[in-house]
Amino acid sequence: MPVGTLGTVKGVSQDVLEELGVQILLGNTYHLYLRPGIDQVRKLGGLHRFMSWHRAILTDSGGFQVFSLSDLRKVSEEGVTFRSHLDGSSHFFSPESATEAQIGLGADIIMAFDECTEYPADRGRARNSMELTLRWAERSKTYFEGHKHEVPWRTDGAVPSAPTQDGPTQVLFGIVQGGMDLALRKESAERAIEIGFPGYAIGGLSVGEPRSLTREVVEATLEYLPKDKPRYLMGVGTPEEIVEYANLGVDMMDCVLPTRAARHGLLFTSEGKISIKQARYASDQGPLDPNCRCRTCSRYSRAYLRHLCASNEILGQILNTIHNLTFYLDTMRSVRHSIGLGSLEQGKGPRLLSGEQSQLKP
Amino acid sequence: MPVGTLGTVKGVSQDVLEELGVQILLGNTYHLYLRPGIDQVRKLGGLHRFMSWHRAILTDSGGFQVFSLSDLRKVSEEGVTFRSHLDGSSHFFSPESATEAQIGLGADIIMAFDECTEYPADRGRARNSMELTLRWAERSKTYFEGHKHEVPWRTDGAVPSAPTQDGPTQVLFGIVQGGMDLALRKESAERAIEIGFPGYAIGGLSVGEPRSLTREVVEATLEYLPKDKPRYLMGVGTPEEIVEYANLGVDMMDCVLPTRAARHGLLFTSEGKISIKQARYASDQGPLDPNCRCRTCSRYSRAYLRHLCASNEILGQILNTIHNLTFYLDTMRSVRHSIGLGSLEQGKGPRLLSGEQSQLKP
Repeated sequence: MPVGTLGTVKGVSQDVLEELGVQILLGNTYHLYLRPGIDQVRKLGGLHRFMSWHRAILTDSGGFQVFSLSDLRKVSEEGVTFRSHLDGSSHFFSPESATEAQIGLGADIIMAFDECTEYPADRGRARNSMELTLRWAERSKTYFEGHKHEVPWRTDGAVPSAPTQDGPTQVLFGIVQGGMDLALRKESAERAIEIGFPGYAIGGLSVGEPRSLTREVVEATLEYLPKDKPRYLMGVGTPEEIVEYANLGVDMMDCVLPTRAARHGLLFTSEGKISIKQARYASDQGPLDPNCRCRTCSRYSRAYLRHLCASNEILGQILNTIHNLTFYLDTMRSVRHSIGLGSLEQGKGPRLLSGEQSQLKP
Repeated sequence: MPVGTLGTVKGVSQDVLEELGVQILLGNTYHLYLRPGIDQVRKLGGLHRFMSWHRAILTDSGGFQVFSLSDLRKVSEEGVTFRSHLDGSSHFFSPESATEAQIGLGADIIMAFDECTEYPADRGRARNSMELTLRWAERSKTYFEGHKHEVPWRTDGAVPSAPTQDGPTQVLFGIVQGGMDLALRKESAERAIEIGFPGYAIGGLSVGEPRSLTREVVEATLEYLPKDKPRYLMGVGTPEEIVEYANLGVDMMDCVLPTRAARHGLLFTSEGKISIKQARYASDQGPLDPNCRCRTCSRYSRAYLRHLCASNEILGQILNTIHNLTFYLDTMRSVRHSIGLGSLEQGKGPRLLSGEQSQLKP
């Protein structure tokens, strides 16, 4: 899932995203709550209509953003008081208000409000944080069940006094926490499943821990999550990591890396990472990635991209982002192809196992 | 002509420019000379190939940019010494070196090196400046005639020791100066015609003078320029102005206004100018311009554009620029249509004069 924090994947218009084959975008509740505001998006028919994006959207709960962006946050049983990173104004998110906000935005998939446990955290702290997240998950679900019919695309913008109970609603995913403690992760997963969600996310990773530890926790946690429901690893990762985690059984991932790196001239290619700002590319007439067919690689030279980057031209950010997203989406297409072959193989015998699949295996 | 200062029309990719129907772009010699450098562009096959733009390009002479961007410039008979606005380094442009630079960039139309007379200037100063521009025009033409076969697209990048004399070359336009003095403008035009160019530009306007004076000088100067050669008014203007000057007989214009204004949220519409940042548009679900069919107007609401602008999102600059360029290009298409009807009318009688044409007349 490309990240479209404020209702836009930075630098790329919606028609290009469609052309790239993007099926689902992530929006950040914390950012959209501050700008343009939940009521505003609700009045305008919800996030899909507001940004003219007719494919799927997932919004996060705001929990991670409060954790990572807001300096003066204060956590209580009730919720989190935090200051806006924009103007320092004070705000409050609870499981109820964060769920209400996500219903107002109207994404297809929304997330239970959780506390993202910091790293490192001792066992006592990780347990308390996990318990809080479980209580908040209950409250998120209760609020969601009582209000899920109030999405703007069911109510034409305004919350009706008596919403109808029929028709499609959003779905609410639960989040597993537990720090880096495998026993706590197991317990968190099992108790989240007890509450019951149509999909489960693994949260609290990519918070500064070593990558080997991330993998260990992911692998251990996946074991306890149902295979027949979407399993979503939040905030991951590099192209190598998304292949690795997909092969472990993760179904969904989101990361700002492809888009943010692109804006800084860091590009992922079939021949490795490239920092296009380097002087060595100033006379390079070749395409960014000879194995890529995106708009950027099929038309422009490395020399031109390097010039755009060195000159701080907007077009550099645009073309770089288009390429990095293509690279990520191609990577996932390749993973899906490989999984498809693997499934075939289970039914029809080993000779359908392709070289491509073995390459993708970690 | 949209302005593509550094080899890119800020915020819009070349395929979108093609889709908008852009026939010719302007590149700035001064900027390209500093970044990525003339030799660099020459080595990469010239500006067309460097930026992957296969339609026409015009480059300015660098004279106006030195005048407007460089603080410490020193003009002598030989040329202009100036400091880079990027790093303060010292550089020198002469009619010969500026023409050489433009041959290296390889645009289809290049401009004689001129001195843009400041405003206000007394008659003595305006005459001296005009005389200098005429001597420089001679020198530009002499250099051009001796070196026009050295364009990169004829020589595959390197300057050959014995370039062939056959095949297409660039064309060099002359520039009329003379300050705001109509007699000097007449003399400047007549003496430029004596030197002989395939097209003529009116320079030294839009330098701070009132608009009524601009119009007076343009109208007076046009009288002395041949109707059967392109007449190019440099650095103009608003949508109203381009209609007005086209109707006076101007064939070509360039201006940063549509693109620069777009990046600041100032949009030209069939209903007048709009500053999309204003809070009044925050809930406006209508299209930016109901009479426009561009990608922006056909997909996004004013509320969304307002949000992108208020949040400083790149996509706001992209979508705004696409709209403003469409508005300018539509304006010129309408002018051409009107001129076509007018020509028909001369041959076939007055009833072919359309209402649209009368509207466009100043």
